[in-house]
Amino acid sequence: MIEPRTLKGFRDYPPELMLPREALIDTARKVFRSYGYPPIDTPALEYTEILLGKMDAGAEIQRQIYRFKDHGDRDVALRFDLTVPFARFAAQYVGKLGTPFKRYHIGPVWRGENTQKGRYREFYQCDFDIIGTTANAADAEIALVIHDLVSALGFDRFTIRVNNRTILNGLLGGLGLADKATDILRSLDKLAKQGPDVVRGEFTTAELSEGQATQVLNLAAARGSNAEVLDRVANEFGTHVAAGVAQLRGLLDICGRAGVPGERLVVDLGICRGLDYYTGTIFETFLGDLPGIGSICSGGRYDDLAGLYTKQKLPGVGASLGLDRLLAAMEELKLLPKTGTPADVLIVQSDAALVGDYQRIARELRAAGLGVELYPDAKKPGVQLQYAESKGYPLAILAGADELKQNVVKLRTLATRSEVVTPLAGLADAVRAVAVKR
Amino acid sequence: MIEPRTLKGFRDYPPELMLPREALIDTARKVFRSYGYPPIDTPALEYTEILLGKMDAGAEIQRQIYRFKDHGDRDVALRFDLTVPFARFAAQYVGKLGTPFKRYHIGPVWRGENTQKGRYREFYQCDFDIIGTTANAADAEIALVIHDLVSALGFDRFTIRVNNRTILNGLLGGLGLADKATDILRSLDKLAKQGPDVVRGEFTTAELSEGQATQVLNLAAARGSNAEVLDRVANEFGTHVAAGVAQLRGLLDICGRAGVPGERLVVDLGICRGLDYYTGTIFETFLGDLPGIGSICSGGRYDDLAGLYTKQKLPGVGASLGLDRLLAAMEELKLLPKTGTPADVLIVQSDAALVGDYQRIARELRAAGLGVELYPDAKKPGVQLQYAESKGYPLAILAGADELKQNVVKLRTLATRSEVVTPLAGLADAVRAVAVKR
Repeated sequence: MIEPRTLKGFRDYPPELMLPREALIDTARKVFRSYGYPPIDTPALEYTEILLGKMDAGAEIQRQIYRFKDHGDRDVALRFDLTVPFARFAAQYVGKLGTPFKRYHIGPVWRGENTQKGRYREFYQCDFDIIGTTANAADAEIALVIHDLVSALGFDRFTIRVNNRTILNGLLGGLGLADKATDILRSLDKLAKQGPDVVRGEFTTAELSEGQATQVLNLAAARGSNAEVLDRVANEFGTHVAAGVAQLRGLLDICGRAGVPGERLVVDLGICRGLDYYTGTIFETFLGDLPGIGSICSGGRYDDLAGLYTKQKLPGVGASLGLDRLLAAMEELKLLPKTGTPADVLIVQSDAALVGDYQRIARELRAAGLGVELYPDAKKPGVQLQYAESKGYPLAILAGADELKQNVVKLRTLATRSEVVTPLAGLADAVRAVAVKR
Repeated sequence: MIEPRTLKGFRDYPPELMLPREALIDTARKVFRSYGYPPIDTPALEYTEILLGKMDAGAEIQRQIYRFKDHGDRDVALRFDLTVPFARFAAQYVGKLGTPFKRYHIGPVWRGENTQKGRYREFYQCDFDIIGTTANAADAEIALVIHDLVSALGFDRFTIRVNNRTILNGLLGGLGLADKATDILRSLDKLAKQGPDVVRGEFTTAELSEGQATQVLNLAAARGSNAEVLDRVANEFGTHVAAGVAQLRGLLDICGRAGVPGERLVVDLGICRGLDYYTGTIFETFLGDLPGIGSICSGGRYDDLAGLYTKQKLPGVGASLGLDRLLAAMEELKLLPKTGTPADVLIVQSDAALVGDYQRIARELRAAGLGVELYPDAKKPGVQLQYAESKGYPLAILAGADELKQNVVKLRTLATRSEVVTPLAGLADAVRAVAVKR
């Protein structure tokens, strides 16, 4: 006998987790599609050379990537994100696809990281991008997609924090710290999670003076209305930040006129994303009710997506929803509905000789858009009703030969154990009245 | 520069392929859910020991499986189907999940096979099963799901061919060939694809007499109404086949009473599925318009799903839709719609200063359930309209500051290049009138 088990850091998705995951994915897809983004998919396995590109031998991903020799002795690996495969894809087909090109991509990625609570070695990413344009209209659209996405996921308290790399670079230039920009931004990226003291400590290591560190941290902590924060930085740093400030003002204006409530978008000079490749607008999204999980949707503008694979410059802007991370957080916080079925009603199999009739009734209800499960065995009604309750069904249908002769069934509300004799002709409406309320 | 390319036997899914793939998956999910089957997912990577079980060292899968050592020096592999992971899953959680347990599972699997037209080393499988019951009602339900699934996929000419392993075993017993059953069934499984001559040749190799081979092939080719075929085999083989005949009769009766047209289900004593583990009902599904691609949905009843991992017997019945194979066949036969967008209408960006207004109009249409893309740059209208045509949009919206002041836009039908001035208040209905017709 082989012990049934999963690998460390991997997990199964039983119905109770998979139903909400599919709901999250469905919602995300609907929003992307409503903006005209089509889906793409790429293989899980790629040449390692493609995935790792010219990455530092010491980079974390080098240790995390699942890499091996395939049957043809090729050096292959499992994708560790969806960005690199998209860069390869874009370089390979840009001539055929043309620009601008928008797409979403939802799928699993693999990283052999040390496992932590809520983090797994296989997890879904959910990316959306517009490439082949430098227009600020595209940056604003990504902000709108994030807004409509997080709203559609059911959250009504959230803020999309926006910044611009050129502002960060401009103000570091204005402070005479341009040569230390990379170190400073890498440290600053830890501000939300680890707090100002940790960041200040790293600034000291990077040989910033006390005064410089204070200036940077003060700017990062600048609060007030978006207009106040942008005015302050524009006044203080002038031409160093003018272009970035104008872009952010334009983005806020577009989103405002498009109908996004003003409080949703917050200029935050303290967000900078660790990744080197962002060059303009930066987004992070925080939930008012789940601040501890960090940004659930992050991204920004980049100058060149696919420079490793093509000479054609592909500027773009996009973001990524942390789908499984969000799901794991909702699971831990017990925010997920407890249901093991996607259907609305269970038909109790009172009499094995009537299975054809039960399935006929079920198929009529299905044709009316309802989900209907028939219990497969003619066990005692109590056993079948217990099954229905354990799956989270609100309703059950019971009928014997006598009822069916009269074209009626008993519709049972499981919570109250009450039954109503219901004509078949009105059954779909009667079930829907309860199913919709759920 | 690294050459952008995929591994041999792997493919990308651009929007033109991914939109129909998502449509197939959506349709399948809707049908499974309408029967109360919830989804599950399992990891792509598992212990090799779990996946290969006690398989022959010479089995084909042993050569095809992607197997390697992970960071913790574990012997791991990519799943090559969804059946083995489901068996492991069922054994691991059956105590918690209880029985009966129904589920669907849609996801990629990997096999390093020799590549052929329409077959890839990464492809989606789509499985649905009921376990924990021996009731014939479950077998009938799988037939109903197959029927509703293939109908919902848009095919109106198809047959679900049904057989029963106990009938096959019974008639081989009746012919005194019980000891050669495995060889005979393996050969018989090639009947549809390779024809009776090939099968007869293999029968001779397996030391069947000319007369025995003819008897088996005659039975496999038996045609007539379902009742005629079943009566014939019942008369000829009596108690050898009585149980299997009764099961098939029961299944046909349930499906008929449930409303499935009689011609959809065809008793075919010639189908037997190569896999050893089927023990009862067997299904194969052939499309009238695509007979060359073989069965697109196959399965059957098994006595014991997870005997490798648990002592608890888990009998069940299920089937698998060959999703990517169906898609590849439809692609080759040019049955796929040529569209690169999931949206209904493109808004031309006539004036960059109006992006906020365009997005406001777009968001109003989106709230009305429509998909609306805004072109990201204020390029010449001709360029933007060419983009719209290349993506397959039927409609474009054009508006300058003057139009917006009057709360109207120009709604352009791309095929006819005609434009109608349309008030914003009626825009959603005007777009929907065309979008729905598509």
